[in-house]
Amino acid sequence: MKTRVYVTLKNGVLDPQGKAIHHALEGLGFSGVNDVRAGKLIELDLEESVSDADIEAMCRKLLANTVIENFRIERAAA
Amino acid sequence: MKTRVYVTLKNGVLDPQGKAIHHALEGLGFSGVNDVRAGKLIELDLEESVSDADIEAMCRKLLANTVIENFRIERAAA
Repeated sequence: MKTRVYVTLKNGVLDPQGKAIHHALEGLGFSGVNDVRAGKLIELDLEESVSDADIEAMCRKLLANTVIENFRIERAAA
Repeated sequence: MKTRVYVTLKNGVLDPQGKAIHHALEGLGFSGVNDVRAGKLIELDLEESVSDADIEAMCRKLLANTVIENFRIERAAA
């Protein structure tokens, strides 16, 4: 069972990586870029037995730093 | 205009970050995890004038290393 976890910084949290990407895009001559936010995409291949609660616990304990990050779980089609 | 770019490693490319997450999950006592692949999620806030070709060029020139990575562009609702 494929599951995707999207981890993004909470609003208001400074995103130096996003800023660096933003400046680099402008340096390459791309215009029209207002903001860039960088996050993580974690793809998990799980046994069917793994429950939503387990995945949530994985996110809270390891995959996301819930002080500064949000996470969203998306169960992909099998 | 919000646009999301998903950058993932191509199949067959070694993913040490994914391996480290996998071992850490097992160390925390989570079972049923077959594989973990780590990737990037980049959220772009763009002007309406930015074309699909521009976004593709951003990906090819900066956001993804197309030798070892795939990218997928998703235009989010405005």
